[in-house]
Amino acid sequence: MNRTEALKLVKPHLTEHRYVHTIGVTDTAVGLAEKYGADPQRTEIAAIFHDYAKFRPKEEMRQIIIDQSFKEDLLEYSSELWHAPVGAYLVRYEIGIDDEEILNAIKYHTSGRPDMTLMEKCVFIADYIEPGRSFPGVDEVREVVQKDLDQAIALSLRNTVQFLMKKNQPVYPATFLTYNSIVKSLNA
Amino acid sequence: MNRTEALKLVKPHLTEHRYVHTIGVTDTAVGLAEKYGADPQRTEIAAIFHDYAKFRPKEEMRQIIIDQSFKEDLLEYSSELWHAPVGAYLVRYEIGIDDEEILNAIKYHTSGRPDMTLMEKCVFIADYIEPGRSFPGVDEVREVVQKDLDQAIALSLRNTVQFLMKKNQPVYPATFLTYNSIVKSLNA
Repeated sequence: MNRTEALKLVKPHLTEHRYVHTIGVTDTAVGLAEKYGADPQRTEIAAIFHDYAKFRPKEEMRQIIIDQSFKEDLLEYSSELWHAPVGAYLVRYEIGIDDEEILNAIKYHTSGRPDMTLMEKCVFIADYIEPGRSFPGVDEVREVVQKDLDQAIALSLRNTVQFLMKKNQPVYPATFLTYNSIVKSLNA
Repeated sequence: MNRTEALKLVKPHLTEHRYVHTIGVTDTAVGLAEKYGADPQRTEIAAIFHDYAKFRPKEEMRQIIIDQSFKEDLLEYSSELWHAPVGAYLVRYEIGIDDEEILNAIKYHTSGRPDMTLMEKCVFIADYIEPGRSFPGVDEVREVVQKDLDQAIALSLRNTVQFLMKKNQPVYPATFLTYNSIVKSLNA
């Protein structure tokens, strides 16, 4: 599947705003893949489909999470997290993609996970810094990612955790575990 | 065991500075126990012994953690965390205290744990706010604890997590699981 075919398949599932975001994530992720040595073509496909399930009804997502025995604790946390694993599932069964690394890059693009592959890291951080994003701290992450991919991910996770804690929201454990995994490898 | 006997037993294990800290934690914890309904006498004993193992050599602590099969991941995190579970162990075997709630208040006084008892909460937060403590944010926690014990603990954990993340240090999982547990009960 090439870029044009993939974009044509994902477009009906997104709003105009989210489609522009998807293009931003895709171009950013491909640039990072080229810079850091992930496969650009497969990273591109993962990025194009990363928000495939973003606009599915909450109840449909909840049911898929239960039926597919995804991590059961997911339902206790923000529904903003749900579209990532549900997206990986639907991209497999509705689009027919069976490349596990692509599916994992979709599955973990919001929470992260310890020991992410290069492709997973590129999609994860591209989603955070694509040109359409505008929030406190994003420019610093854009600068850091040009020098060190892991430092940029650590910084983005720190920002996310601080943002959630300021709002007295719980933090999904995988997010913390990803942060720990990254700083341990940076400090090693 | 009364306060005088307990202080006499703990004193040889502490520096002068840490002994003064211990008195501060004890008086603060007893005040909170009276305010929020934990047993003041047993909370007092837990607070007096909370730093019993603070000055044990790292190698002794490491060996006890291994021999006693404490959570094995503890050794991957700051040794500042080790004296709490090691202290609970030594207070049982050297001092002879077998009150499980007192031992747990010692064991979890640094990391916290989800679903802490009232006594555990009083010792945990007293250790953070006792009058000798002086760091950014401590006065806010002192104010909040007069209104809501759980809010104060959530705030202290947020401060701790931010402090560690600013230094690019990993965060011990029990610490953020405690944070999640507290904010979930606050938001429920």
